[in-house]
Amino acid sequence: MSIVKQKTDQAVKILNELGIDLWLTYVRKTSEIHDPSLYFLLEDTWLTWQSAIIISKNGQKIVICGRYDAQNIEVSGIYDKVISYDQSIKEELLAVLNELKPKNIAINYSFDNIAADGLTHGMWLRLNKMLEDTEYINRLISSENLLAALRGRKTELELENIRKAVDFSELGHKKVSETARIGMSEEEIEEMLLKFTKENNLTVSYPPLVHVGPSTSIGHGKASSDIKIKKGDLINVDYGVFYEGYASDLQRMNYVLQDGEDIPTTEVRRAFETVIKAINAGAEKLKPGVQGWEVDCVARKVVTDAGYQEFMHALGHQIGRNVHDGGCLLGPRWEKYGKSVMYKVEEGQAFTLELHVYVENHGYCSVEEDVIVTEDGCEFLSDRQLELSLLKL
Amino acid sequence: MSIVKQKTDQAVKILNELGIDLWLTYVRKTSEIHDPSLYFLLEDTWLTWQSAIIISKNGQKIVICGRYDAQNIEVSGIYDKVISYDQSIKEELLAVLNELKPKNIAINYSFDNIAADGLTHGMWLRLNKMLEDTEYINRLISSENLLAALRGRKTELELENIRKAVDFSELGHKKVSETARIGMSEEEIEEMLLKFTKENNLTVSYPPLVHVGPSTSIGHGKASSDIKIKKGDLINVDYGVFYEGYASDLQRMNYVLQDGEDIPTTEVRRAFETVIKAINAGAEKLKPGVQGWEVDCVARKVVTDAGYQEFMHALGHQIGRNVHDGGCLLGPRWEKYGKSVMYKVEEGQAFTLELHVYVENHGYCSVEEDVIVTEDGCEFLSDRQLELSLLKL
Repeated sequence: MSIVKQKTDQAVKILNELGIDLWLTYVRKTSEIHDPSLYFLLEDTWLTWQSAIIISKNGQKIVICGRYDAQNIEVSGIYDKVISYDQSIKEELLAVLNELKPKNIAINYSFDNIAADGLTHGMWLRLNKMLEDTEYINRLISSENLLAALRGRKTELELENIRKAVDFSELGHKKVSETARIGMSEEEIEEMLLKFTKENNLTVSYPPLVHVGPSTSIGHGKASSDIKIKKGDLINVDYGVFYEGYASDLQRMNYVLQDGEDIPTTEVRRAFETVIKAINAGAEKLKPGVQGWEVDCVARKVVTDAGYQEFMHALGHQIGRNVHDGGCLLGPRWEKYGKSVMYKVEEGQAFTLELHVYVENHGYCSVEEDVIVTEDGCEFLSDRQLELSLLKL
Repeated sequence: MSIVKQKTDQAVKILNELGIDLWLTYVRKTSEIHDPSLYFLLEDTWLTWQSAIIISKNGQKIVICGRYDAQNIEVSGIYDKVISYDQSIKEELLAVLNELKPKNIAINYSFDNIAADGLTHGMWLRLNKMLEDTEYINRLISSENLLAALRGRKTELELENIRKAVDFSELGHKKVSETARIGMSEEEIEEMLLKFTKENNLTVSYPPLVHVGPSTSIGHGKASSDIKIKKGDLINVDYGVFYEGYASDLQRMNYVLQDGEDIPTTEVRRAFETVIKAINAGAEKLKPGVQGWEVDCVARKVVTDAGYQEFMHALGHQIGRNVHDGGCLLGPRWEKYGKSVMYKVEEGQAFTLELHVYVENHGYCSVEEDVIVTEDGCEFLSDRQLELSLLKL
């Protein structure tokens, strides 16, 4: 069974849970604007003319599309009914609505959730014009809650891809430890990872982030060609890939031993241990039913209790078709995170757990793991980093 | 000077022509939803948080974007002012509007024009919420006319890319003539072209269309593995590529001589000559100031005067960043083409000229050329096909 088949079946289940009668994804020329939901609805198929992808609470799966696109949808076998048109989609769409008589229709737009906001404004205007003389015009709602659930709950096939993406990220991190040399710049590490990814016919799920030593620029800045590995440096790398469209997102730490050192300085060890303890605390808290912010809170407390400055980002985000995915976020109740941190955690969601502390004179100490939420807790998808990787260069 | 610099300068000129004070392209996470206008506004730069790209009638070029994206925009040197924010774009955007005081603001959405409709509905709602207590809320218009002009009028650098795309398409067509063999299927020809394109590190601007003999399925259907070249067949191939993001779109004709033939049958010759005459007629008519439908009309008349059934598509569409581009279409005044065929042709627009007739027992006879509109006419970008390519297989 394909992922698309699994996800469209799952959508029916979620429609019933949420009390939504119909999910309508309305698109045109998907080679130009690709609605992020299409990955779950179509198998590598492009739609040219205006098209409607319809899934109902009762399990009907219907596509209305232009004549030349119909055949590809039919052969996929996902849809019970493929209705094609030559002139205008309006009559066919109204006929389907009049048959199904939905009391509410979830449409592919969202104020907050980027991954649920694929409808263009021009298409919104078109949809409203088509429905203006019907009762359906007042029944349109956002499909964002449906998509938060659908993107979050990973099927077995999805999880398999994420596992493979995680495994490959680990290989990349291993290569960093193996190739690191005194004098190697942040940029050289980044380039090595990009080359390694490409050689293996994969793509990165985001540009790799490389932080070397105390003078690195923290965040999403470009890797520097001036900042080079020296003794006593913490080396942090954030590297993930897409495997069959599914993302991993992992950070690993190396430490370059100084002359005469066999173990890192106390401050480095204490920083690393604090990061690991905070991840442990988050992982222990993470289970179905807790709200996102609660998980963030326990990890954040470990960091502040240890006397470090708190990290100014969320403890964890979901991964999936995107490297930031789903609805629920494991983050603090800050204004900018809005309702995402109030969502309850569900079984089958894949999260990152990541946080950092900064160590004076040594650099940025940050670890990131990937986990999947189980029935009563969570399971690590990554082979956890529990010890600092020590490099004698 | 880069294409982006040229196009943003051109936008200022068009704003003045159209009496528009401000062009505002409002986007977020452009790796997910990529507004088609961004190709003309940014050089391979991704924007993550909500961002506003602003060009004013007076030549101001301003970007407001998240902190981590600002540096990449600054180094491009296109924008006079890059304003970054941490929490919310609202204050910065209102400050810019209050400084420029535009009496109208062209926004990136369009009912009709897909290439001018990059704003998602969620982003439209956000924009309206930001502006709800200001006078600007009632000054929003579509940027579709601005974009029709901007996409249409090719700069020298754009034209150079299109010329290279056209040249490469011709190589592909030459390869079809060279490799065609009795028994070769439509699908094999398609696969050969895809392989050839990939080997040369280019991408096709659309899936190649292959029509072999009288039993081919006409239109955008998939090439058949069952329909194979035999003597007496017309072989039509429609093949274009992207060169540095700019498209070509060319059709060429081969004819497989039958035993004892040195020239094709009279019907085949008459069909081919009619197609060429119709292209000639269209090219003669094509010049700045004529409306799109007028050019279509003269070519269509050649076909119907010769007693053939008229072709059920437009004579020509623009090419550029997309294989169907710009605003003006050289098509008949059919309802589905709307106002696109009423636009006046402008200097610097690149068009296809394409049409077909069907020849009983031999197949689909269609030629497509690419032209650029000059000051007082048009110039062929392609090395015209004036003779049917004859294959002795």
